[in-house]
Amino acid sequence: MQIGDCSLVLQPSQPDLVLNVGRVTLGEEYRQKQQKFQRDKEKKKVVLAACALLNSGGGVIQMEMANEADHPLELGLDLEQALRELIPSSDVLQAFFETRQQGRFFHIFVKSWSNAALPEDNCTKPRICSVSSSLYRRSGTSTICLDLRQAYDFLKTQKRKAQNTLLNEESEHSKILRAMHQDIMESNSPFQVFQSNKIEYGHILPFPESHSVEFKQFSTQKTQEYVKRVIQEYIPAFANTGGGYLFIGVHDKSRRVLGCAKENIDPDSLQRVIAQAISKLPVFHFCSTDAQVFYEIKVIDVFKNENLYGYLIIVNVEPFCCVVFSEDPASWMVKEQQKIVKLNMNEWVAKMMNTDPDLPEAFESQLTLSDHPAYCREQVNHKTQLQQHLFPVSPGRWQYIPETLWMELSSQHKGLEELIHQQVHPASWGILIFSRSWAVDLGLEEKQGVLCDALLIAHNRPPTLYTILGDQDAEGQDYCNRIALTLKQKLVTMGGYTGKLCVMTKVLCLNPNINAVSLEMSSSQIHYPWSYNFVGTQQMESFLQALMIVLLGFRSLLRYQPEKNSYLSNFHHHSHLFVHDLPVSGKATMAMKIRDRNIRLYMEAEEVENVCEDVSGKTTMAMKIRER
Amino acid sequence: MQIGDCSLVLQPSQPDLVLNVGRVTLGEEYRQKQQKFQRDKEKKKVVLAACALLNSGGGVIQMEMANEADHPLELGLDLEQALRELIPSSDVLQAFFETRQQGRFFHIFVKSWSNAALPEDNCTKPRICSVSSSLYRRSGTSTICLDLRQAYDFLKTQKRKAQNTLLNEESEHSKILRAMHQDIMESNSPFQVFQSNKIEYGHILPFPESHSVEFKQFSTQKTQEYVKRVIQEYIPAFANTGGGYLFIGVHDKSRRVLGCAKENIDPDSLQRVIAQAISKLPVFHFCSTDAQVFYEIKVIDVFKNENLYGYLIIVNVEPFCCVVFSEDPASWMVKEQQKIVKLNMNEWVAKMMNTDPDLPEAFESQLTLSDHPAYCREQVNHKTQLQQHLFPVSPGRWQYIPETLWMELSSQHKGLEELIHQQVHPASWGILIFSRSWAVDLGLEEKQGVLCDALLIAHNRPPTLYTILGDQDAEGQDYCNRIALTLKQKLVTMGGYTGKLCVMTKVLCLNPNINAVSLEMSSSQIHYPWSYNFVGTQQMESFLQALMIVLLGFRSLLRYQPEKNSYLSNFHHHSHLFVHDLPVSGKATMAMKIRDRNIRLYMEAEEVENVCEDVSGKTTMAMKIRER
Ligand SMILES: [Zn+2]
Ligand SMILES: [Zn+2]
Repeated sequence: MQIGDCSLVLQPSQPDLVLNVGRVTLGEEYRQKQQKFQRDKEKKKVVLAACALLNSGGGVIQMEMANEADHPLELGLDLEQALRELIPSSDVLQAFFETRQQGRFFHIFVKSWSNAALPEDNCTKPRICSVSSSLYRRSGTSTICLDLRQAYDFLKTQKRKAQNTLLNEESEHSKILRAMHQDIMESNSPFQVFQSNKIEYGHILPFPESHSVEFKQFSTQKTQEYVKRVIQEYIPAFANTGGGYLFIGVHDKSRRVLGCAKENIDPDSLQRVIAQAISKLPVFHFCSTDAQVFYEIKVIDVFKNENLYGYLIIVNVEPFCCVVFSEDPASWMVKEQQKIVKLNMNEWVAKMMNTDPDLPEAFESQLTLSDHPAYCREQVNHKTQLQQHLFPVSPGRWQYIPETLWMELSSQHKGLEELIHQQVHPASWGILIFSRSWAVDLGLEEKQGVLCDALLIAHNRPPTLYTILGDQDAEGQDYCNRIALTLKQKLVTMGGYTGKLCVMTKVLCLNPNINAVSLEMSSSQIHYPWSYNFVGTQQMESFLQALMIVLLGFRSLLRYQPEKNSYLSNFHHHSHLFVHDLPVSGKATMAMKIRDRNIRLYMEAEEVENVCEDVSGKTTMAMKIRER
Repeated sequence: MQIGDCSLVLQPSQPDLVLNVGRVTLGEEYRQKQQKFQRDKEKKKVVLAACALLNSGGGVIQMEMANEADHPLELGLDLEQALRELIPSSDVLQAFFETRQQGRFFHIFVKSWSNAALPEDNCTKPRICSVSSSLYRRSGTSTICLDLRQAYDFLKTQKRKAQNTLLNEESEHSKILRAMHQDIMESNSPFQVFQSNKIEYGHILPFPESHSVEFKQFSTQKTQEYVKRVIQEYIPAFANTGGGYLFIGVHDKSRRVLGCAKENIDPDSLQRVIAQAISKLPVFHFCSTDAQVFYEIKVIDVFKNENLYGYLIIVNVEPFCCVVFSEDPASWMVKEQQKIVKLNMNEWVAKMMNTDPDLPEAFESQLTLSDHPAYCREQVNHKTQLQQHLFPVSPGRWQYIPETLWMELSSQHKGLEELIHQQVHPASWGILIFSRSWAVDLGLEEKQGVLCDALLIAHNRPPTLYTILGDQDAEGQDYCNRIALTLKQKLVTMGGYTGKLCVMTKVLCLNPNINAVSLEMSSSQIHYPWSYNFVGTQQMESFLQALMIVLLGFRSLLRYQPEKNSYLSNFHHHSHLFVHDLPVSGKATMAMKIRDRNIRLYMEAEEVENVCEDVSGKTTMAMKIRER
């Protein structure tokens, strides 16, 4: 993808999103020696890649080192600072970015911009990151570009305001804003000047700059371009902060009216330029109107010794009902695992405000009716409970899940057991989750010749997906990578997994004619940092909880398919429902969920009863399971 | 109060906190001409005053202008920026600070640092502001001082972590941190250098700076002072961010070991200095231990051509369980309306984390059992419902509340009606809330000679408290000011009022021998901005809701006292309970609250029934009121 001068390339054949940004100079010492132009160009592409990856489940920025270095290097302070501005201010850089030098390559490992670990924090954080919000407001005598958190808070406030206005016709808010103007109106000066038709050159305006008054002097050259730029920044700022007056033609410190000499501007065409610039400002409405920015332009004749010298321009902006942008916000995503796209304003606001609810929260809030912040620990426990039933983590022990499937597979395929044992051997303990096709489980297309897929969650290792082929197949690695990447992204976006994550891949071949492991294809050549491994049971449990949500959100927890292409109808005799020990409300919800989605779940409980319960008027099916 | 070189004086005889900070130069043009030392000194005292007022319910900073100016001035960019750093980043300067020039004086009107308007935002904001958190962390290769929001998030995270560690003995968190170190440990270099006993001068360390490695060179002079300062900043930063290695004696860009020449330092005394500096770092525990910062100091001999040249110092810091400060955070409050005090670390953390719950939230959460964020609009409505019953706002109409008291007072005191009418005349409509003593209602001492106090809430005017005296009394104004200030502070801190607020005061005298209004004493000479007036019904209702909470939190909603000194026993025959239309849970809670506090409430409902209800096992008294 070409972004201005930068080109970003998504690397194929990886189980992770790997964005190659080309040559970059690394290390503070070397970057300081660079020309500013070159440094900024490199920074721009690194930041763009980081933004796109943060918004797309995480990944790796790959750089070729432009400079020689005998020893490993750090990024450089300017790159660090630029990356720091992308992440939530409460986090430290290394929580999202880790670096590793690998020969001529330098990698930045980017964690997903994630939801908070606890639901109580979720309401406070936007769902995406941006390079710039393109949102300006007035704060004191300054115009500031809102950072991500400020932008998020502002959007929330404006949304609430719009909703209140709907409830309350008289728009209290604008009255309060008007009251804040009142002091200025009392002395009445900006308003008085705005009403006048002529003014003396050098006249000192009798009021200072404030949140609603800004003085600008004309630039000496490219007047129209300059005015356009000023309009683009200041008109949204005033509109987003209670309105105000922009004076063009006043020296800001001395407040002297200098105007613009009549030889240099044509007031009519300048008015048209201003009007056009304002009409192009993107506006977003939370309210039901399609109001535009309301403003008036006044051109005042500036006299010098009773002769017309030039013009003073004043733009009076009314407070805007909702949100005025200066341009589309700058935020990128990787779409469909293959192209980098810039979000438009509407997509951006929707993501920021999280108007498309994600599954993990819906899942949790359905699990319990009392999801008050005070109860969230309890809530988390429900999720934990479920996970401990489905995928119990037992330190020191190896588990093959579902056991019945594993037994069937290993008896069907000679040599499978040995092959798997060899693979898991380096790890001390963990879980292997088998499926006839993880691809189908995740809604991807299945592949002929795949005997089964197995996901390894093992202590001190990263999660690893194995695809076991009946025979050699050059496309096996791509298939495995595709599943792994999809799984990772779903774990993050649906499952709400917040840790550093990459699902590694390995393709195994079980051709009895070749030595079992001879066709082992190595996956990614990128060496991930240690923090991408599972270091403890809590981390493994978090992963398994996310996995559970991903699988529940789809067709089956573990699709078990005795006969191909009929996996929704026939079930093995060992299938059971897993709902257990949850409060009645949770059970009922789960039952509805299961019924709605035609999900069948596997457990080894001995007895299953279906109990009809009337929950708040609607008859839903709840399931009750007795302890074995 | 003396703060270093600055002196701040609380002005007496005001219904608001007014802090005089002395002479200050104002206006960007003038401030830029100042010497930096003088400018910073002025800034320091303004910021300190603003912090103290923000934390104490708001007030006014009074400055004498040090410079001449023909026209009103703005503050100046450096002052604006310093003030902006005090407020939540999501707010704009003018939301908290407004300025007004008044002759030789310049006033900054400071709104209270307030809780958010909606409960859902409350969890996300600290309860106080600070000039500095004195909390450092590592972010990438930098050490950053946390701003208020970062500090708040960090405290919350550490608290949660401490609680999780209690639940889970194995301390997953530190394992993850160790995993992040692992990469550095793998190449093993900082650890290897730390283990060694000698190193060559000029040797280039084979690893870069990172979140866990910092290189510092010795300063050329005042080595001990310099080392102390470095320790105070970097040791907490590493301890708060997963631990790390501080190298003193390495050039940071070239990574060359330069050490400190042996002539210039004594390694033993330097080790003592370091140990002492670390032992003085204030630590705060959320966990149950009293652990100190764990560290090791290593002095490594630096050789040059096989001769001892000097020393390299390495401090290895372990991750800390909770929070390490560099010094006490810098935050001030006005205590007991009369002195400015600096908070210590424990007070500061308690305020930040809001471990002392405030009334408004307790009030609301008791009002309804379902205070999930999704329901908060409903919740607000409960408060609104109550307020609309007790203090209905009727645009265009005057109301005297309680009517019975007003009738009694006006028949008792000849001329009162005329006096009051004259006072309220300039306003178009509003509410006057009478009490025989607002002082007693607010828990203050009553005053002999006061006929009654009346609080005016009127359209386009600020809230105003009238004290009506039977005869002239020089202390009347002080009495009235004291009530007004107490009321304002309670409205903000207890009532959760978030608007700009000052309760104005006016003392009236009803001596029949003098003309009714002749002894009108004007209250504050400070002219408040327009935004301190009520501009609409919503704002008045918010005020009245806060007032309701303040009064319910105390002895009576409106103490009505037919006989002095027995106001808790005898009640007028018009007294009724007001609970109405609330959900059962709210009723029960309210009933408990009323019973617990011996509160009697006034309403004009016709019938009152007490109903015993069993709420979750406890028998509580609920009240049911039929519609008139
Ligand atoms: Zn709108
Ligand atoms: Zn601790």
